[in-house]
Amino acid sequence: MDPKVRKTVLRMIPYALYVATATHEGQVAAATITWLSQASFEPPLIMTALKADGFLYSLARAAGKFAVSILGTGQKDMAAAFFKGGQLEDGKLNGYPVEPGPNTQAPLLLDAPAWFEVEITDVVERGDHAVVVGRVVEVGLRTPNPKPLLLSETGWSYGG
Amino acid sequence: MDPKVRKTVLRMIPYALYVATATHEGQVAAATITWLSQASFEPPLIMTALKADGFLYSLARAAGKFAVSILGTGQKDMAAAFFKGGQLEDGKLNGYPVEPGPNTQAPLLLDAPAWFEVEITDVVERGDHAVVVGRVVEVGLRTPNPKPLLLSETGWSYGG
Repeated sequence: MDPKVRKTVLRMIPYALYVATATHEGQVAAATITWLSQASFEPPLIMTALKADGFLYSLARAAGKFAVSILGTGQKDMAAAFFKGGQLEDGKLNGYPVEPGPNTQAPLLLDAPAWFEVEITDVVERGDHAVVVGRVVEVGLRTPNPKPLLLSETGWSYGG
Repeated sequence: MDPKVRKTVLRMIPYALYVATATHEGQVAAATITWLSQASFEPPLIMTALKADGFLYSLARAAGKFAVSILGTGQKDMAAAFFKGGQLEDGKLNGYPVEPGPNTQAPLLLDAPAWFEVEITDVVERGDHAVVVGRVVEVGLRTPNPKPLLLSETGWSYGG
C-alpha cells in the first residue's frame, strides 16, 4: 500500500472536533478527539476511536461512561487546549468553565454549543486506538443552530 | 432525552457518502453508506456502521471483506443510485462502470475519485446498524486532489 495514497484517501473522510471527558473515583480525564460517528438509530449508539494507551480511555473504561462536548466553529483554541489532557482547577477544566454531566458526572464545557453522554456497551481493542461503542443517554444544546468545528476548518489533519 | 435535541446534536457530526460493495459466491451487494471513520493508524483500521438487516452487511460478513468507493463532490446522483442496493449487469453496477478490487473482488466504481478495501476484523451487533471494524488492505486514487461528497452538500441527513 502506497503510504502517500493511503494518506490522501483516508484523509477524505470528514471529521469534527470534540472534547471527551470522563471521571472516576475523583479523577478526571479529558482529550480532544475526532474519530467519531453515529452507529445506530435504535438504540442510539455512537462509535469513537480513543487512543488505546491514553488516560481518557482508561478512565472512561473504569467509569463505563464518558461525555462529549461538541466544539463549535471558531473554537480551534479550545480544541488545542485539550491536546495534552485536562486538569480540573477551581471548577474549571484547563481554564474553561464546566458543569458535571447529569449521567456521567464528567465535565461538560459550558462554551461548547452541544454535548452528549455515553454509556459504553462494547469495546474493540485491536489498534493504536480502541473502538468504543456506546449508548447516547443524554444530549444537550446550548445554542439554537450550532455549527461544528470541522477538522478542515482548523487546517489540521488526523488520519491517513 | 428530547428527540428534537437529540436530532440536532447528533446531526452536528459530519459525514461523507460512500458506496460499499461486497461479493461472495457469485453474489454482489452494494449500498450507499455514511457512518464511517478511521479507527487506528497502526494497523490502519476503519470502523463503519452498516444496516444490520441489510444484504451488504450479510455478504460482507460472509466474504470477510468489502470495498468502499469514496464519492466525490457533485456525485449526489451516484449516491442516490445505491440507496436500494446494487445489480451487476453487463459489467456495470446499477449502470456505472466498475472493476473488481484487487483483494476483495468487490466492484469498485471507476467514476469515484478514490477507494479502499477492508478485511473485517471485528463486529459489534447491538443496534439497528452493526459496527464493523476492519483493516485497510489496499487504497486507490483516481484523481489527484479529490474532494469528497459531503452529506451537507446533498441536503440529506442521516443521523439523530
